[in-house]
Amino acid sequence: MGGFFASALKEDCVFDLFFGTDYHSHLGTRRAGMVLYDTMKGFDRSIHNIENSPFRTKFDSDVQHMKGNLGIGVISDYEPQPLTLRSHHGTFAIATVGRINNRTELVNGILSERSTQFTEMSGGEINNTELVAALINEKENLIEGIRYAQEMIDGSMSILLLTPKGIYCARDKYGRTPLVIGRKEEGFCASFESFAYLNLGYVDYKILGPGEIVIMTPEAVTTLAAPGTEMKICTFLWVYYGYPASSYEGISVEGMRHRCGANLAKHDEISPDDIDVVAGVPDSGVAHAIGYANESGVPYSRPFIKYTPTWPRSFMPTIQSKRDFIARMKLIPVHELIKGRRILLIDDSIVRGTQLREKVDFLYRSGAKEVHIRPSCPPILFGCKYISFSRSTSEMELVARRIIDDLEGRHVEGDDLAPYLDPDSEEYARMIEGIRRQQGFTTLRYNRLDDMLDSVGLPKENLCTYCWNGKE
Amino acid sequence: MGGFFASALKEDCVFDLFFGTDYHSHLGTRRAGMVLYDTMKGFDRSIHNIENSPFRTKFDSDVQHMKGNLGIGVISDYEPQPLTLRSHHGTFAIATVGRINNRTELVNGILSERSTQFTEMSGGEINNTELVAALINEKENLIEGIRYAQEMIDGSMSILLLTPKGIYCARDKYGRTPLVIGRKEEGFCASFESFAYLNLGYVDYKILGPGEIVIMTPEAVTTLAAPGTEMKICTFLWVYYGYPASSYEGISVEGMRHRCGANLAKHDEISPDDIDVVAGVPDSGVAHAIGYANESGVPYSRPFIKYTPTWPRSFMPTIQSKRDFIARMKLIPVHELIKGRRILLIDDSIVRGTQLREKVDFLYRSGAKEVHIRPSCPPILFGCKYISFSRSTSEMELVARRIIDDLEGRHVEGDDLAPYLDPDSEEYARMIEGIRRQQGFTTLRYNRLDDMLDSVGLPKENLCTYCWNGKE
Amino acid sequence: MGGFFASALKEDCVFDLFFGTDYHSHLGTRRAGMVLYDTMKGFDRSIHNIENSPFRTKFDSDVQHMKGNLGIGVISDYEPQPLTLRSHHGTFAIATVGRINNRTELVNGILSERSTQFTEMSGGEINNTELVAALINEKENLIEGIRYAQEMIDGSMSILLLTPKGIYCARDKYGRTPLVIGRKEEGFCASFESFAYLNLGYVDYKILGPGEIVIMTPEAVTTLAAPGTEMKICTFLWVYYGYPASSYEGISVEGMRHRCGANLAKHDEISPDDIDVVAGVPDSGVAHAIGYANESGVPYSRPFIKYTPTWPRSFMPTIQSKRDFIARMKLIPVHELIKGRRILLIDDSIVRGTQLREKVDFLYRSGAKEVHIRPSCPPILFGCKYISFSRSTSEMELVARRIIDDLEGRHVEGDDLAPYLDPDSEEYARMIEGIRRQQGFTTLRYNRLDDMLDSVGLPKENLCTYCWNGKE
Amino acid sequence: MGGFFASALKEDCVFDLFFGTDYHSHLGTRRAGMVLYDTMKGFDRSIHNIENSPFRTKFDSDVQHMKGNLGIGVISDYEPQPLTLRSHHGTFAIATVGRINNRTELVNGILSERSTQFTEMSGGEINNTELVAALINEKENLIEGIRYAQEMIDGSMSILLLTPKGIYCARDKYGRTPLVIGRKEEGFCASFESFAYLNLGYVDYKILGPGEIVIMTPEAVTTLAAPGTEMKICTFLWVYYGYPASSYEGISVEGMRHRCGANLAKHDEISPDDIDVVAGVPDSGVAHAIGYANESGVPYSRPFIKYTPTWPRSFMPTIQSKRDFIARMKLIPVHELIKGRRILLIDDSIVRGTQLREKVDFLYRSGAKEVHIRPSCPPILFGCKYISFSRSTSEMELVARRIIDDLEGRHVEGDDLAPYLDPDSEEYARMIEGIRRQQGFTTLRYNRLDDMLDSVGLPKENLCTYCWNGKE
Repeated sequence: MGGFFASALKEDCVFDLFFGTDYHSHLGTRRAGMVLYDTMKGFDRSIHNIENSPFRTKFDSDVQHMKGNLGIGVISDYEPQPLTLRSHHGTFAIATVGRINNRTELVNGILSERSTQFTEMSGGEINNTELVAALINEKENLIEGIRYAQEMIDGSMSILLLTPKGIYCARDKYGRTPLVIGRKEEGFCASFESFAYLNLGYVDYKILGPGEIVIMTPEAVTTLAAPGTEMKICTFLWVYYGYPASSYEGISVEGMRHRCGANLAKHDEISPDDIDVVAGVPDSGVAHAIGYANESGVPYSRPFIKYTPTWPRSFMPTIQSKRDFIARMKLIPVHELIKGRRILLIDDSIVRGTQLREKVDFLYRSGAKEVHIRPSCPPILFGCKYISFSRSTSEMELVARRIIDDLEGRHVEGDDLAPYLDPDSEEYARMIEGIRRQQGFTTLRYNRLDDMLDSVGLPKENLCTYCWNGKE
Repeated sequence: MGGFFASALKEDCVFDLFFGTDYHSHLGTRRAGMVLYDTMKGFDRSIHNIENSPFRTKFDSDVQHMKGNLGIGVISDYEPQPLTLRSHHGTFAIATVGRINNRTELVNGILSERSTQFTEMSGGEINNTELVAALINEKENLIEGIRYAQEMIDGSMSILLLTPKGIYCARDKYGRTPLVIGRKEEGFCASFESFAYLNLGYVDYKILGPGEIVIMTPEAVTTLAAPGTEMKICTFLWVYYGYPASSYEGISVEGMRHRCGANLAKHDEISPDDIDVVAGVPDSGVAHAIGYANESGVPYSRPFIKYTPTWPRSFMPTIQSKRDFIARMKLIPVHELIKGRRILLIDDSIVRGTQLREKVDFLYRSGAKEVHIRPSCPPILFGCKYISFSRSTSEMELVARRIIDDLEGRHVEGDDLAPYLDPDSEEYARMIEGIRRQQGFTTLRYNRLDDMLDSVGLPKENLCTYCWNGKE
Repeated sequence: MGGFFASALKEDCVFDLFFGTDYHSHLGTRRAGMVLYDTMKGFDRSIHNIENSPFRTKFDSDVQHMKGNLGIGVISDYEPQPLTLRSHHGTFAIATVGRINNRTELVNGILSERSTQFTEMSGGEINNTELVAALINEKENLIEGIRYAQEMIDGSMSILLLTPKGIYCARDKYGRTPLVIGRKEEGFCASFESFAYLNLGYVDYKILGPGEIVIMTPEAVTTLAAPGTEMKICTFLWVYYGYPASSYEGISVEGMRHRCGANLAKHDEISPDDIDVVAGVPDSGVAHAIGYANESGVPYSRPFIKYTPTWPRSFMPTIQSKRDFIARMKLIPVHELIKGRRILLIDDSIVRGTQLREKVDFLYRSGAKEVHIRPSCPPILFGCKYISFSRSTSEMELVARRIIDDLEGRHVEGDDLAPYLDPDSEEYARMIEGIRRQQGFTTLRYNRLDDMLDSVGLPKENLCTYCWNGKE
Repeated sequence: MGGFFASALKEDCVFDLFFGTDYHSHLGTRRAGMVLYDTMKGFDRSIHNIENSPFRTKFDSDVQHMKGNLGIGVISDYEPQPLTLRSHHGTFAIATVGRINNRTELVNGILSERSTQFTEMSGGEINNTELVAALINEKENLIEGIRYAQEMIDGSMSILLLTPKGIYCARDKYGRTPLVIGRKEEGFCASFESFAYLNLGYVDYKILGPGEIVIMTPEAVTTLAAPGTEMKICTFLWVYYGYPASSYEGISVEGMRHRCGANLAKHDEISPDDIDVVAGVPDSGVAHAIGYANESGVPYSRPFIKYTPTWPRSFMPTIQSKRDFIARMKLIPVHELIKGRRILLIDDSIVRGTQLREKVDFLYRSGAKEVHIRPSCPPILFGCKYISFSRSTSEMELVARRIIDDLEGRHVEGDDLAPYLDPDSEEYARMIEGIRRQQGFTTLRYNRLDDMLDSVGLPKENLCTYCWNGKE
């Protein structure tokens, strides 16, 4: 994934940029960077590797020396960003969040036609953001360039582009990922996460529509390309990877999760008397579980605590031999809340099933009497092809698909999967029972697609449900 | 405060020491260190400043080169630790957790009598751990030395002392802070926090009693000085600063907080119908709030989210001018859960009142209709003099004391405070109303001392309640 | 200036690359970098700022992890280098040494015609090496591209270009800067400084001619473009900035300086009896002085010692206020060798005159009786326009030009300077006397152009003498 | 060895301390440190490892934040220094240069009598400077303490001791190492190397006598303990490890080396016509060679250049396997000056003979016709036991001693060595011929003890000659 933040103020914006970018740290694990533009000093850029050290530790000293009233910052799961470039558009800086499925074709196309070059190589790979810039540079002006890049890219691409005149902010064509504008007296900010500007004194100003492009200056935010009519925002933003304090399209993540958990509870067959506690897998399962507990009247509790003080993101220590071991160390059991209990455990989703199974095994070993699993979304049957989303994986690693193949004794694809999409079918029931048995859960019930979508509250055609029903 | 961890294994213990120490990061903010002893390499020590960088980032590379089957690690709020020393006891390493009220007297006593010297100075101050070592070195053998140090020190002092023969583990004289032993096939560990060894494969083996001293080797844990009969463990360990997944004296922190919140609810005068949601101030207020919500049937929710990915501990950026501003940035509001709501908010305690007031003001500004405050412990009337505890502060900064002086129009001390300790007195009621009005809460009700102590479940005489009733 | 080194071995070349590049540290002060190519790992690049830390300190840890049998390294006075790029030529790395006078025209030309982009910006400036790459990428193949770049660039440009198939080594069109090939059993190296490979076990293999392009693999060095017939190698390489242990065009720097000093002595009017000691300004003046002393029979001595242990290159401490002071701290006087002495002091050249004047003043203050100055080259009258050479400066900062203008009472340019080029003219004599008086030297005599060129020994038309006589 | 510097100014002394200490970098390779005392800030200390990075790189950023008008700095070959301590003398900082032969006895004595402790352990070893402090702390006041420490220590010990009242400067009992005071308007400095303060604006003020103790403040330097009458300054200071620009006891190092080389020439049997060039092994052999060349009339030249830009001190890269190889990389041959030449090569001394042999072999391989070796001191027959001097080594590693044993066919010790001390004896001649043949020199002639001592010019009884004649 990844996330970004931009600020355009009548005064120095480095403080806002530092914290606004830092607030996106949960979205990426590899690189982070900031570029500032100051009328006197020009462009100033800083990029660091954040794999084993938090954003704040790495950028704290840079911030002392950076200065400017326009700036963009990014947390990146992949390539080093932002880039500063010079082309016929002049000098500009660029940061992106998105996914490019047709990278090879685009690169080959560019290199076959023209004598351009890509310099931001890492391990032989071309930097995605540089590729986006190359596409933008094919056109006469920046607006056409950005639209062209978004048109050419198979996937999705949101862009922050900093020029001396202002910051171009472009949301991806179908609004799969969010981009919002905040306002305060001194100017404006643009952000992936809407919560990122709250503590910096901004209030909600504008939600960019799908494919909308604006230019942001300290004085104004002006639309350069109107939003498209078609929207397909990723439902998983609410279900799993969005920050609880954020809102997307004006709908609170925490609120959606409460409703989602409540919907799970409403249609659950299990009686509240048959469970002792409701719990959620941190972080994203927690709010779903609160919703379920509040609806059902079953006590909410935390049998796992997530250890946070020094475990920012996916710290990977150099002690190679123990990597798997370390991955398991983030959750700490509270034995008193596990022993002898019948636990209803809510996770946002089940992907490959391995992590959840480990947790459930651990609960049994710690003395849990029963473990009832309630994923807050339906079975995942398709890998994401629209955004760079970490739950996205090879489809045959999805536990639901593996169970289907087992049940049918053959590789099931395409239309043949249809029966398994219907929660009222016998096939669906067999699939669920297969997963339950294989995973060792006491009971298993997934949320229904409709219940989950109702929890968001947007028109269903505006929500991408590809992971669950393969609908493009 | 501060915390420590030790490991004695038949194999290299550096991995356990690294993570076991890291799991104490929530207890200290300034320095951290590890010492290992290896038969071939001898003592090997590493100390880092962790003020702006997590333990793991700082020690990750050291761990590659360190080696040994005995080791001690410490997270320290004050002095650099552990120290490696040579005295007539031979060479040893030492780490401490505690408080020394009579430091000047002890130093003067030592320097007036003998030609010793203190070398671990920081800013002209003598290192507390070096002072403890100096006291230990006054006696013939280490056991006598440790007992002597604990006897002489006014405050409390728990000690890990690493020698080539094994690790001496000494819990402070009255057991004010915890010290437990874990066991696995390869050996043993000693830890302040009991949860710190769970994910490392250890199981609970032994809780050290007050003043108990053991020597820990990979083969055995042998008691060298029997535990005392008197115990005064700090009740705030459960209420506030203990880690939720820990147990002290076998009693779970999370469990105690659930009972504590439930007790608050049981005796609350407010009707569940008059509040919309129950919430807790992260981190420690959360479990109290869950207990209250489960008991009262009022929905639990999270109007604040604590931003954790990159905000380990008390990061203090170099941008001096904005320090206050930054302190407020850790909690992020969820507007949808605040607007128009009647919120019952539980914090572990109220010290000076400034932080809580800021949060409540913020809730009002964000549209909260009512904010009812329920601290899970009684009013704090006395500053801690036994352990280095961050809630400890000058007594006249305590909001309850300031209100009492205001009410009486004079400085109230000693026995004159007695009426304010009785929750059924008129004076107590006036004090509470004074705090409520000054702080701007809709209603305010503190937990009763008995209800709080019942939530722990230990004999009352074993729990230190000095902060609340001045009983030594 | 700057310097570079490449290695192509049948085995891992990282050790040779590290030391071979380090041996060029005297040529640059800002950035250094290395790129390795390994069949399995692909391209691996490391770049560091070396302004306040030596190359070895900065790259020592990188070297542990880098690997490859082909590699290029560079010490750069300006831009970060080498770059790794992808273009229609595939992926390659490139390092350059040279000067581009027509950068703006080249950039504008490229940007106006095509949609290319420059990403390696520092402070808004386009990276010269990226510009060279952009020129190379305009042509069908690398050889044509390199020739085209050299053709288009006004200045000079030597190039190392690393591809998976081998390393292209191209000496600038008129051979203004050197490029030599060394050979050992395991393969080959290419180097600016010929001494850089001696201690690594290589022997002299081939001197590239002007504009010659070769491809170097572990097995062979193959000429791809034959050398041109015209050569204009910079004479200052021998006189001033070449390393004493190097040879250019097979002619030893130290040897040339001995002959140059000897020629100075041979034609000097001063009697050996009228001077007590001959001394040289470190570093480059030393060998000239040895040559003079050996020829004249006057004792050689060192009234100045250059402090080297921790003063690598142009260390510029952050204590801003004292920068000028610090610049003077590198030379340390030996009072015993100064007091009461008549010193003949040889410096390689006089540019602005300020530094030499400071040294001479210092000698007088330390008790020198007389200070006779003998620059080993003629008066500098023109600024270099061919290579990025630190002695090159604005012409009106040249002391000789300022004195001429003073003498004539007007700004003298072009053909009007002719009389001052003739060492036998009255104008020349007046200019020398003007400089002498202004600088406070006891006597002053410059080397004659012929004497200096004779000391090199190459045909005069192959040596660039632009600085002295303006001959292009 | 090691060296130190102190400054006491009416203004902030950090600038002087930084450069004054840095100028001692040639004397040590492992640790460096500075302590400042400021009336407001108290003591402030900074210590760094300088094994792979120069002093200036490591301390540049510290200097920004340090402040004080009293300060001491040290370059240390062994222990981390300076230390800051508190004892009955109050708080002070201490740095030392010296050697302690009876460390074990002193430590055991201290630990057996008293309950003191040593905390500055590195790898199990007690820090020498802490041991000195412990000795000083045994006495009532600092003067008595310093004298007592110097009395008890077998070896030598010079001390800088910083208190809020001023800096105690104590030269070792027999003045084996130097200690001088410089003065400028703003105050005073104390220094091992006299050249270290020249560029900082100080002039020579006072040479401390053997065992003299002074207290230095910004206002005055007051003698607290008068100098002793017996002096045994190390002759090797001039011959080998002193800095050329320094003077000891007022005698210039460079000047002594010139005279020493001249004396070698005067009594040499070889005719100037039989050698082509005179050369010196850098660094210390250079000035001896200049003296020889000037006296003999044989041209001086530099067949080796020492590579300095990035090779500060004994950089030891992490590429373990190539350490020997790397040690050889500091000297770079100048082939043109070697080929076909008859070279007379002067080194300061021959210890084990391995390094010189490597250089001579290299000269032969590079085409030298003859290599005549002239050490500027007599054969070393005894290892130093007075100062921590790197030429000091196990006596049986000394090439002269190994040859003697070979010649005699037994281990020769004590009085039996007498004949080999007499340069006119047959035994001496056989020893020299033995060394020459084993080392492969064309001819070999050592300087005579008298010629060397005459070059210094001090009364012979004031110079330690133990290395050469075993006279204590």
